[in-house]
Amino acid sequence: MKKKISQVVIKRMPRYYRYLSELLEKGTERISSAELSEIMNVTASQIRQDLNNFGGFGQQGYGYNVQYLHDEIGKILGLDQVHNLIIIGGGNLGHALASHQTFHKHGFFVKGIFDVNEKLAGQEVNGAKIMMMSELDTFVKSNKIDIAALTIPKEHVQEIANHLQDLGIKALWNFANVDLTVREDVVVQDVHLSDSLMRLTLNMIQNQARNQENE
Amino acid sequence: MKKKISQVVIKRMPRYYRYLSELLEKGTERISSAELSEIMNVTASQIRQDLNNFGGFGQQGYGYNVQYLHDEIGKILGLDQVHNLIIIGGGNLGHALASHQTFHKHGFFVKGIFDVNEKLAGQEVNGAKIMMMSELDTFVKSNKIDIAALTIPKEHVQEIANHLQDLGIKALWNFANVDLTVREDVVVQDVHLSDSLMRLTLNMIQNQARNQENE
Repeated sequence: MKKKISQVVIKRMPRYYRYLSELLEKGTERISSAELSEIMNVTASQIRQDLNNFGGFGQQGYGYNVQYLHDEIGKILGLDQVHNLIIIGGGNLGHALASHQTFHKHGFFVKGIFDVNEKLAGQEVNGAKIMMMSELDTFVKSNKIDIAALTIPKEHVQEIANHLQDLGIKALWNFANVDLTVREDVVVQDVHLSDSLMRLTLNMIQNQARNQENE
Repeated sequence: MKKKISQVVIKRMPRYYRYLSELLEKGTERISSAELSEIMNVTASQIRQDLNNFGGFGQQGYGYNVQYLHDEIGKILGLDQVHNLIIIGGGNLGHALASHQTFHKHGFFVKGIFDVNEKLAGQEVNGAKIMMMSELDTFVKSNKIDIAALTIPKEHVQEIANHLQDLGIKALWNFANVDLTVREDVVVQDVHLSDSLMRLTLNMIQNQARNQENE
């Protein structure tokens, strides 16, 4: 059985991909692990260790071939395949996700948005139609949906998460400010905006306190 | 000089606050560290260690007083004070942040939204006016702004972050998919949506691979 890769490594992989994409855009063909480590602000040995989880891609005395490493990390991240998303919740956040500029580029396609507000029915956001929750089951069964983004109030999100799992969806992108309970074969990624804002504030307070003491 | 509190602890504090808020809503007056640990899915010793960073709030043989612990963590997070925000970028994400339901409740007030699109000038989102970027300097100088949320494309975000720092803003909430370079007395909290979606996908792929091997 394959070793389970730790969440800290998984967390860093998209960041590697992002930096390698930027290097490619700039036309950089190869990069030493020392240079990559400097622009990414992580140690060269951490980069090597992280990549070794997936087989390793370094080349002695040459560094990394940017295009190759970019594409290999893209494969690890599943970006060589198309992923279909639905968004539950047709509010501002649902609109923001549906109109996000870079998802498309990476093979993520928003196939539909679902809401209970009948006034939104039939509207289109960046090519994705807003449908009613009553249409959800039929839609998911007749479209290959991998991922559901949840942009609804926390009061309803666990119930809807349960239903989406019943429909066979294996990945939930949760924007409601509550931790979901899911089955073992289902993964969740949280974007807790309130938590994030509080963390920023706490860091700001701590930073101010340190700077005052240093004065 | 005070010990610098680690980012993993800082990351967990808003989550404690969230769970304690939920307990309060349910009318729970006291909770043992074992019960709190169970609902939060962390060990009781980790809770104790985390809280000890801020002085510790446990009471032997009694557990935690929920209201007291909630309020104390609120103070640590700076939620006993009002924080004024501006949002740079009047798109869907800017709208979503300005209309977020729980920010207000925690003392975060969106005082203004700034954009370059003249068609948006004068619009109001949940009480916050959309102004033009040319009005930014005067506005920031005459309002006590703590935090700027950046919901603009990555191409412009570093330049605008620099300018906001010149204006004295000490906390940047960055939604652009790029890592910002900031001064020592400024803090950044990133919400990298593309990274988050890729992490979800990677977890989904890894989870599927494991489940197939186990069948």
